[in-house]
Amino acid sequence: MIQTLWLIGIGTGSPLHVTGEGMQALRDASVILVPHKGEGKDDLAELRYRIIEASGSTARLVRFNYPERDPALPYLERVTQWHDEIARRWQSAVAEVAPEGPVALLVWGDPSLYDSTLRIAQRLHPVPDIRVIPGITAIQALTAAHAIPLNAVNGPIHITTGRQLRDQGWPEGAERLVVMLDGEAGFQTLDIPGAEIFWGAYLGMSEQIVESGPLAEATPRILQARRAARARHGWIMDTYLLVLPKAAEV
Amino acid sequence: MIQTLWLIGIGTGSPLHVTGEGMQALRDASVILVPHKGEGKDDLAELRYRIIEASGSTARLVRFNYPERDPALPYLERVTQWHDEIARRWQSAVAEVAPEGPVALLVWGDPSLYDSTLRIAQRLHPVPDIRVIPGITAIQALTAAHAIPLNAVNGPIHITTGRQLRDQGWPEGAERLVVMLDGEAGFQTLDIPGAEIFWGAYLGMSEQIVESGPLAEATPRILQARRAARARHGWIMDTYLLVLPKAAEV
Ligand SMILES: C[S@@+](CC[C@H](N)C(=O)[O-])C[C@H]1O[C@@H](n2cnc3c(N)ncnc32)[C@H](O)[C@@H]1O
Ligand SMILES: C[S@@+](CC[C@H](N)C(=O)[O-])C[C@H]1O[C@@H](n2cnc3c(N)ncnc32)[C@H](O)[C@@H]1O
Repeated sequence: MIQTLWLIGIGTGSPLHVTGEGMQALRDASVILVPHKGEGKDDLAELRYRIIEASGSTARLVRFNYPERDPALPYLERVTQWHDEIARRWQSAVAEVAPEGPVALLVWGDPSLYDSTLRIAQRLHPVPDIRVIPGITAIQALTAAHAIPLNAVNGPIHITTGRQLRDQGWPEGAERLVVMLDGEAGFQTLDIPGAEIFWGAYLGMSEQIVESGPLAEATPRILQARRAARARHGWIMDTYLLVLPKAAEV
Repeated sequence: MIQTLWLIGIGTGSPLHVTGEGMQALRDASVILVPHKGEGKDDLAELRYRIIEASGSTARLVRFNYPERDPALPYLERVTQWHDEIARRWQSAVAEVAPEGPVALLVWGDPSLYDSTLRIAQRLHPVPDIRVIPGITAIQALTAAHAIPLNAVNGPIHITTGRQLRDQGWPEGAERLVVMLDGEAGFQTLDIPGAEIFWGAYLGMSEQIVESGPLAEATPRILQARRAARARHGWIMDTYLLVLPKAAEV
């Protein structure tokens, strides 16, 4: 049984993204649940171990494997079933060690942003006491890498996913739009004269690449950089900010 | 002359929000520019000194006073003039010590989010090399305090200011709306049956308060907590997330 669960935001790839609170929580945890994704993203698994080591934690590390998603199911059902199965795996991994104190999970970026860990935790029986430790998101890593503000003075910000951008098009009223979870570089389908793009991949990591410029001009450059980087590393995580001409002026 | 300027995001009030990168940057800086706002927000000034001390930095601390804003000017002009004056004050404060290495500024939350430091830095002559160190934002501090996701599964997020909410009303298409910089508790003017609010003040600090619930029911409770806290501390900083009924289901 998991009585107390701590979700520790670790930032987006730099061990130096971790906050003092995150480091402290790693030290205070009894058990740390470590996923083995087996997706060839070994760089990411290694990062977790480096962070745990840097914290000086003596928590017991308990591994679990990620289940497969069932491709036959419709999207939401597939996700729900997958979350249930992950919750079961946490539970049985932890059952073997019967921890006295908090169980911790390292969560990429911030646990609140496009991450399912909080939803999975709600599927545990009984639902544990949950503590969330905030982390640097890919959005902050992007704007920091470009040294740019996210918003125009007093202006609104929209954040969306590649899937939403594809299905719904440009969101009504958006002047500055952050796009995450976009495996298909959806910016290449947009034709917005005067728009600017600020793009970044592997943000916070030693592999970090950034590109920016007028959307039309920068698109082929980014697609090229993206293809090359993906071929080199075997995977890519990228995020971008689109700024409409009106918003760019302020 | 400021050749290299580092903007260090320090999070929203807990010294434990500062990242490893932030602590390292404080140690590597030659000079740290520390504002004296004289607004009676002494808790906040003290926090900066506590963070600098905790980092073990031996940088020289250089103080500058914030200028007054000219209330006679229209909004954007007033802001521009104020930024120019702050840039001049940084420059003259630093001129006296002629630093060899980087000049650092501690920026509340993350430097990219509703903060003018990056824009002020662009007004320096010559514009220095700028490095931004990301920090935990009030948004992450809010969702962490409530242990909730910011987005629905795959759903979009809107972020806006109290002023925008007042002038423009509920943003078109928004399902989840974060409101910042709202001195007037704009949520009390909304009538959205079934909407939920997640509110927090002094997030990350020992004074932290959170309230949540159905908007109609929670509004008087929050207004009451807000008034009492403001009377007690002399100031308040609060942020909230509004979730429409549709988005609440997922
Ligand atoms: C499942 S979401 C997790 C987001 C994470 N919780 C956060 O706070 O950033 C994964 C998406 O985040 C973005 N992302 C995460 N890490 C990134 C990085 N190091 N560089 C660029 N984008 C990143 C990408 O858009 C990616 O598709
Ligand atoms: C000038 S903006 C700065 C935002 C900051 N750069 C960030 O990343 O959070 C100030 C607004 O941020 C929010 N805020 C900042 N610190 C906060 C805190 N500790 N608790 C609640 N809200 C906070 C409030 O909405 C406040 O009006």
